[in-house]
Amino acid sequence: MSNPVLVEVTRGALVESRHRGAVAVVDAEGKMVLGIGDVERPVFPRSAVKTMQALPLIESGAADAFGFGNAELSLACASHSGEAEHVALAASMLNRAGRDADVLECGCHWPFDQHVLIDLAKSGKAPTVLHNNCSGKHAGFVATSVHAGIPTEGYVTYDHPIQREIRGVMEALTGTALEMDRCGTDGCAIPTYAVPLDRLADGFSRMVTGRGLEAERAKAARRLFDACMAEPFYMSGSKRACMHLMQAAPGRIFAKTGAEGVFCAVLPEKGLGIALKCDDGGTRASEAMIAGLLARLMGSDDPAYAALDALANKTLRNWNGTEVGQIRVTDALTQ
Amino acid sequence: MSNPVLVEVTRGALVESRHRGAVAVVDAEGKMVLGIGDVERPVFPRSAVKTMQALPLIESGAADAFGFGNAELSLACASHSGEAEHVALAASMLNRAGRDADVLECGCHWPFDQHVLIDLAKSGKAPTVLHNNCSGKHAGFVATSVHAGIPTEGYVTYDHPIQREIRGVMEALTGTALEMDRCGTDGCAIPTYAVPLDRLADGFSRMVTGRGLEAERAKAARRLFDACMAEPFYMSGSKRACMHLMQAAPGRIFAKTGAEGVFCAVLPEKGLGIALKCDDGGTRASEAMIAGLLARLMGSDDPAYAALDALANKTLRNWNGTEVGQIRVTDALTQ
Repeated sequence: MSNPVLVEVTRGALVESRHRGAVAVVDAEGKMVLGIGDVERPVFPRSAVKTMQALPLIESGAADAFGFGNAELSLACASHSGEAEHVALAASMLNRAGRDADVLECGCHWPFDQHVLIDLAKSGKAPTVLHNNCSGKHAGFVATSVHAGIPTEGYVTYDHPIQREIRGVMEALTGTALEMDRCGTDGCAIPTYAVPLDRLADGFSRMVTGRGLEAERAKAARRLFDACMAEPFYMSGSKRACMHLMQAAPGRIFAKTGAEGVFCAVLPEKGLGIALKCDDGGTRASEAMIAGLLARLMGSDDPAYAALDALANKTLRNWNGTEVGQIRVTDALTQ
Repeated sequence: MSNPVLVEVTRGALVESRHRGAVAVVDAEGKMVLGIGDVERPVFPRSAVKTMQALPLIESGAADAFGFGNAELSLACASHSGEAEHVALAASMLNRAGRDADVLECGCHWPFDQHVLIDLAKSGKAPTVLHNNCSGKHAGFVATSVHAGIPTEGYVTYDHPIQREIRGVMEALTGTALEMDRCGTDGCAIPTYAVPLDRLADGFSRMVTGRGLEAERAKAARRLFDACMAEPFYMSGSKRACMHLMQAAPGRIFAKTGAEGVFCAVLPEKGLGIALKCDDGGTRASEAMIAGLLARLMGSDDPAYAALDALANKTLRNWNGTEVGQIRVTDALTQ
């Protein structure tokens, strides 16, 4: 059985391309209130679970010890665009932990956002590890290690105490055993574990409601969501979907993208946890899917509906600015 | 019915993303010898039919009048990377037709190839219309118009004599009526017409074999394929799939990509015409699909097989260079 088409890309009067996907939404009681497609297939959540991966930073006391506020916590959960502010804050986090960029094990890449990339190239500079979209998360790992008196070297490896701790956090939140057969290596070198969408959605619902969690973890999870919603720029970047989604309803939507077409989100007011994946890994489609899904869940009477609907259904233009088609969500997602 | 999964992207031991698609291969006699998925669904071929669109340039006598050789004809069929040689040759073609870049109606964009983009940004320059990946095709349209004594203004519009001529060529080659209901606007502003994959494959088989074509058209079509195979750099760019595919078997494979996951190709020795589309428009998948398909059609005894197979099945590495997975073609494509 194939997953349904959730996003269509049109040109003229015809559908040119089609994106399939699966969606799981779990409510405050742990009930799946919406399931589309195969929600039991294990999915690598990639960067969409950075809030789960950042829990030890808070629970260990490291965040408070180094004076990390909303911006730093948001950056610790970020796939950022490598803009100057992101780079500077990642460096500052490392410095406060008594380290510098040399300890980062995430590798270098040019910023994903073309505008940022062009500006960096024009300046004659090359990207450093601090430009890596995961540098804030890695700075958080380093800070957690330093605070715990653990060597930072090899902090990205499966057996390092930081990654073991994260594995335990994710197993507890998702109720899924994350053995080596579920483990892949992420773009930034850390382990990523495949989890079914319904279990991911349940984990996010638990994080935002505190259902079944120790008080300290529930508090840490809400603190991370609140930090990201308060400082969405540091979790993403100037022209990025995550920022636009969170700005559509300040303090009422947390949404985080992951590579290969993943999105995880929570609606704090409703206690909903959300996870989705575009089968083919397409980011344009996962961004439309999450916007269309959030619009549906918020409801057409919500003040945020129009902004979310506009993110879910966009006009496509060619290099001359002429309208050539649309990217739009289908009835299978919205009804 | 959904098209089968033809390409898988793996991470660790699991499949992370899946790309579906359809494939049509038509032989010298016009028989479909391989059909995978829905080959009757109309597909916008986009840039994959630039050889069809360049036929008037030769048939009108314009190419000879302006002294266009293999490199110029290859550029007229190109989605080029905007490298210095591409830009210079497009300018030269326009100059030989007595015009300059001001007449181009394709719009500007930064080069798609990140290395080329970064080099251009570092140089402090911005892209011009000559950097547009279609500037060679547009230079060909301008040259054809000038040679025919037709105003070049509006040469991208549906009713301009050049586009009418191209529409007639494509209708004749594909046996498909291309009315307005099949028409979309391409990225470079010209009309693009949706054609079923089996009709596209038949059209390419006819072009490479001459089956049912007037002698002059058959000769022009072979001249274009030969030019592209002789000068694959000018049809694509330094690190591009089309160049790698054609270099795998010099003079024995013509292959041209189109936006949104399309590829068209011919195998001159076998008289085969090929058309495929990845449902979701993914380029990484359409590139793997065409390589895997060409490997299958050439056969495992062919000297080009290993190179094609390597293009169809690639190791994926993260920013540190660590192997994290594969992109690979499935049995549904190769068997």
